[in-house]
Amino acid sequence: MTDTSAPRRARPRLSQARSALVHSTAVLDHTGQTRNLEIPAERALTLYLDKREIVTLMTLGAQPEWLALGYLCNQGLLSHASAVQSITVDWEVQAAAVTTHSPQAIPVSLAPRIVTSGCGQGSALDTLDTLLRQVRLPEAVLEQSTLATIVASVRQHDSLYKRCGSVHGCALFAGAQMQLYIEDVGRHNALDSIAGWMALHASTGAPAGGPWVLYTTGRLTSEMVTKAALMGVAIVVSRSGMTQMGLELARSLGLCAIGRATGTRFLCFSGAQRLVWQGLSAEH
Amino acid sequence: MTDTSAPRRARPRLSQARSALVHSTAVLDHTGQTRNLEIPAERALTLYLDKREIVTLMTLGAQPEWLALGYLCNQGLLSHASAVQSITVDWEVQAAAVTTHSPQAIPVSLAPRIVTSGCGQGSALDTLDTLLRQVRLPEAVLEQSTLATIVASVRQHDSLYKRCGSVHGCALFAGAQMQLYIEDVGRHNALDSIAGWMALHASTGAPAGGPWVLYTTGRLTSEMVTKAALMGVAIVVSRSGMTQMGLELARSLGLCAIGRATGTRFLCFSGAQRLVWQGLSAEH
Repeated sequence: MTDTSAPRRARPRLSQARSALVHSTAVLDHTGQTRNLEIPAERALTLYLDKREIVTLMTLGAQPEWLALGYLCNQGLLSHASAVQSITVDWEVQAAAVTTHSPQAIPVSLAPRIVTSGCGQGSALDTLDTLLRQVRLPEAVLEQSTLATIVASVRQHDSLYKRCGSVHGCALFAGAQMQLYIEDVGRHNALDSIAGWMALHASTGAPAGGPWVLYTTGRLTSEMVTKAALMGVAIVVSRSGMTQMGLELARSLGLCAIGRATGTRFLCFSGAQRLVWQGLSAEH
Repeated sequence: MTDTSAPRRARPRLSQARSALVHSTAVLDHTGQTRNLEIPAERALTLYLDKREIVTLMTLGAQPEWLALGYLCNQGLLSHASAVQSITVDWEVQAAAVTTHSPQAIPVSLAPRIVTSGCGQGSALDTLDTLLRQVRLPEAVLEQSTLATIVASVRQHDSLYKRCGSVHGCALFAGAQMQLYIEDVGRHNALDSIAGWMALHASTGAPAGGPWVLYTTGRLTSEMVTKAALMGVAIVVSRSGMTQMGLELARSLGLCAIGRATGTRFLCFSGAQRLVWQGLSAEH
């Protein structure tokens, strides 16, 4: 049996590329004095799918293999991690090479030729619209006390944000249990990295500890809602607000969107039927 | 003399498309009570350059004509506003039609086929790198007291952010004088709208009131620094921080990058030679 006839469901081989997440620099403060400061690293990562260049992402670089996989999944270029043979990230050449078992099965004609940076990444809306129409979100509900635990867990998490700011964070919970917390200079990268982790690690169906819940420090825009839905997550929580298109999309999908979540306070923008109100009093 | 032989330097004809900037919605708070909330509008705007589809931007829609022009300038698809005959925005069909005097002069082959959303928009880095190598920033310097006035002006400005959050703001100053303040669901849209205004209104060379200074509520990423440089602005101010690539680019360009600006406090990340320190004491 050769490598090429390996079982389709085998887990992809992943490199373990690591790089410094903070960059030290000297700045001048308002009194003209020099201060040493840590700022988040930011580097270009060019994704190749079966040797075809897809996109260049500007990323912190914490989990580049998950990012590469999740990006391809969330853009509709991969449907399952099992299609992938290997993901090899090499920071020397700032490249992530994703190799599939069956290159011809990849709809490369859909590849969006985009190059992105900063806090957003853009997406090929037509492709995503088609995918979204096929989404059926699970029957997840969330108790108010679990939501409060989630918000408290994020607040207590030891984050790069607390150390040097200028990053967004996303966390995935199974009920009240934090599964992973990813930070990046782009909030879409953080979310895509979680999508990559889910594609690799999550069994189909609901997790044991409770429903999947996505937490993000960023606003709930249409892209964030789209990606959550594509990841099969029916409940999203943000400490920030929501835009109009994000709201309209969440309502059309029946996705539970919680914004302005701090302490035990929050606003439920959409999908209130998924929340179990327990009459908890607000912190003051 | 026909329309088509009109002088090249004539100002483009612009539509005055307007639309609601806020959207009212009912949400549930943590006690289960209904609250009426205003959230920022968000709508798709597809840009056509001489009937060629370029990009779809998700925008608040405050100044769509400036946004269309500034986007094309900042992507290197237009070099001067004088090349443009008209910009017509029609919200009914969510389109901005930009018509030039000489379509053949537009390097449409450079057009990035990107579709974007949320807070970022991406850009064609190769094209921008080429443009950046031609940038020579003006000899602008800024007094510390002027910086404090700028920060205070932004704080006092009556913004949509104060009303409903979830938007980024960008302001352009000539010295201490605010020329315009633009908000958008994407901070890149806000910056591009300012670029469009500058292309239409700004004469070449330094303004009368002092150097051009760009203020942004968002982080100073590589894209923000790139666009400021392309707009000929040598001094950028943010109330947020800076990423590593933004810092490296600012230093290579000799651009003065001020972050964490609140009250009279700030950090100068780059281009300290452009700042005139005046020993102002910090607010406590």
